[in-house]
Amino acid sequence: MVFVTRRERFNAAHRLFKPEWSDEQNFEVFGKCSNPNWHGHNYELWVTVCGKTNPETGFVINLKELSKIIRSKIVEIADHKNLNLEVPFMKNKIPTAENIAISVWEEIEESIANLNCNLHCVKVVETENNSVEYFGKNKV
Amino acid sequence: MVFVTRRERFNAAHRLFKPEWSDEQNFEVFGKCSNPNWHGHNYELWVTVCGKTNPETGFVINLKELSKIIRSKIVEIADHKNLNLEVPFMKNKIPTAENIAISVWEEIEESIANLNCNLHCVKVVETENNSVEYFGKNKV
Amino acid sequence: MVFVTRRERFNAAHRLFKPEWSDEQNFEVFGKCSNPNWHGHNYELWVTVCGKTNPETGFVINLKELSKIIRSKIVEIADHKNLNLEVPFMKNKIPTAENIAISVWEEIEESIANLNCNLHCVKVVETENNSVEYFGKNKV
Amino acid sequence: MVFVTRRERFNAAHRLFKPEWSDEQNFEVFGKCSNPNWHGHNYELWVTVCGKTNPETGFVINLKELSKIIRSKIVEIADHKNLNLEVPFMKNKIPTAENIAISVWEEIEESIANLNCNLHCVKVVETENNSVEYFGKNKV
Amino acid sequence: MVFVTRRERFNAAHRLFKPEWSDEQNFEVFGKCSNPNWHGHNYELWVTVCGKTNPETGFVINLKELSKIIRSKIVEIADHKNLNLEVPFMKNKIPTAENIAISVWEEIEESIANLNCNLHCVKVVETENNSVEYFGKNKV
Amino acid sequence: MVFVTRRERFNAAHRLFKPEWSDEQNFEVFGKCSNPNWHGHNYELWVTVCGKTNPETGFVINLKELSKIIRSKIVEIADHKNLNLEVPFMKNKIPTAENIAISVWEEIEESIANLNCNLHCVKVVETENNSVEYFGKNKV
Repeated sequence: MVFVTRRERFNAAHRLFKPEWSDEQNFEVFGKCSNPNWHGHNYELWVTVCGKTNPETGFVINLKELSKIIRSKIVEIADHKNLNLEVPFMKNKIPTAENIAISVWEEIEESIANLNCNLHCVKVVETENNSVEYFGKNKV
Repeated sequence: MVFVTRRERFNAAHRLFKPEWSDEQNFEVFGKCSNPNWHGHNYELWVTVCGKTNPETGFVINLKELSKIIRSKIVEIADHKNLNLEVPFMKNKIPTAENIAISVWEEIEESIANLNCNLHCVKVVETENNSVEYFGKNKV
Repeated sequence: MVFVTRRERFNAAHRLFKPEWSDEQNFEVFGKCSNPNWHGHNYELWVTVCGKTNPETGFVINLKELSKIIRSKIVEIADHKNLNLEVPFMKNKIPTAENIAISVWEEIEESIANLNCNLHCVKVVETENNSVEYFGKNKV
Repeated sequence: MVFVTRRERFNAAHRLFKPEWSDEQNFEVFGKCSNPNWHGHNYELWVTVCGKTNPETGFVINLKELSKIIRSKIVEIADHKNLNLEVPFMKNKIPTAENIAISVWEEIEESIANLNCNLHCVKVVETENNSVEYFGKNKV
Repeated sequence: MVFVTRRERFNAAHRLFKPEWSDEQNFEVFGKCSNPNWHGHNYELWVTVCGKTNPETGFVINLKELSKIIRSKIVEIADHKNLNLEVPFMKNKIPTAENIAISVWEEIEESIANLNCNLHCVKVVETENNSVEYFGKNKV
Repeated sequence: MVFVTRRERFNAAHRLFKPEWSDEQNFEVFGKCSNPNWHGHNYELWVTVCGKTNPETGFVINLKELSKIIRSKIVEIADHKNLNLEVPFMKNKIPTAENIAISVWEEIEESIANLNCNLHCVKVVETENNSVEYFGKNKV
């Protein structure tokens, strides 16, 4: 088994808040991330898949295929968008890095399985200091 | 003369558009950056000042002072904010990286002059591939 | 389970040596790292915790809380200090990156458990080429 | 158990192709990576070993020893070379990042075992967006 | 005047040698960079242009236009190619970073002038430790 | 004229203080950087030289020669040392980044002139947020 990682990037606006809560309650939990006028990030996605290397090609996966999946299912949907308002895979979810990672996993898992390898990890880097990793619901 | 550079960071939402134009015209010029629901970035500011080293201290400027100026005049105003709606120093300006750099210069120039050195350059890094630098209106 | 990582930094002096050994013996084992007049590093700490995302907030942990723990228990104690002479959690330990990682784990494990998640990994980056990771004594 | 990682680098030319296939077939599978006149990369190797810290030294491994192994067995052989034509450990293998990682593992595993620790991971970074990791044939 | 920088990347093989010299002479001057079987790099291009910000758009240049010029004139020609054998703008030139920077300048200068700004600097980063900058023949 | 930059690194301990001042006075000016037990940094040196490209070689300077000068005159003297106590070129100077940059310039200027190019800039990066540049006493 070899693990292969592809990085893709998107820039988006978001706001961390629960619509059921007042602005004060939201501020207490989410701090400045709850700003009603939004803020945003340069998000990095690091998608890791694993599988056996194909003895014909020496590839676990053709990185162009992996890139195409991430771009068509995630980057084209989320780039230069508002994660709360416009991104179907984040609908009704608070767009924390944790929820973005889980949602990206769900969006791409099947397409990757179709390429004969397994999705291993989705890492979302929100700032140079903060990131999250999700390994699927059966892992760990 | 020695040049001293301090990096600070802020995360913000913005939208590139002219209110006088239709959404179509805005899209034609600004592309996906004109998305009406905003998008955002992790902005890096690199502020360079120049001056003589003080023979007593070996400092051109105490970096804590430089950091304090950038934080109080820029980062606390713009971080986790919407550059179009909430940031006084960007009011009525299209928040391109160029305009951010010029506006940051204008906000901090005087405070730096009060510390006996000269503002030399404001660099705004919007993504790992895109950045701008402004050296003031008398330079170049 | 989702894994959340926070980076913090501190700058410190240290020396690798055993007081029981002569300078020659220390030099033989630790090379230039045993220099009696100290040297130093910009240390990066990458602390990873894991847990379930809280369905109310979408957070595994509020990163501000995680940051506060690392800063109060590690950064404020070790930053701009001499790891051999002044940092209680390194007392009587040779300040290798390995020992720093284990000691940071011991200092912060309980506080993180109090936030309903588990400390998963402490990574210490000493230079751009050298780093260590510790996953606790029950792991691996 | 603590994990220790050392980074080393080499620059090399390569071409992804199967000699049994026509240029057209190679292009179909490997795209521009099959260019008959070669292309190249700045490769980063991240080698991770694991073991117990020696209570005498606080080291899992002396990083100078680890560096020496990677340099003598990999970097001196592959740096500024053509991976297809001149590097014995890549002979008759398509020089994908996957095959490089597996081959590096096989070249260095025994020397690391001789230092009383275990090779844990070989990571090959081919570009800032693409990398692979190999954990040995018994792992995962 | 504001300065705007765009980064683009390409991966290529090359060899530093003078055909008039023997392999020994080439090795003496160019060292392992003269390897007859080629080696390669991940090249980064940082192209800086300067001009006035357009008061209508807040742009010195639309970065999409700048990117398009660099991609069509440089990246599509040089990426995954052999700089000595296949890249017209490097023909009969030793492909040092210096010569790459000068040649890139000559390839793109006119197209940038057509966008009402001036090419200011072409920076070529060959490795994380080595880079060159060219500011045109009239500058400095 | 082309500008060529080489990066080298060293790790050192230092303390910012004036021996004529009390610990309290030193703390007031230099803050935690005045800690009597030292602290330290991973320093990056970026040395830029300029000159004409030699038409025979396509080089402004052979980077191996530039690297050799920086290593023999700076890195071997300062690496894993105490800048206040053991580094002759910092003797009787407060080891601020400004003074390090000026001193490095003075140490290497002549050797670079002997290679038929001019030292253009010495940049010292002390942390990821703080750096200084010195262009010689006749510049700017």
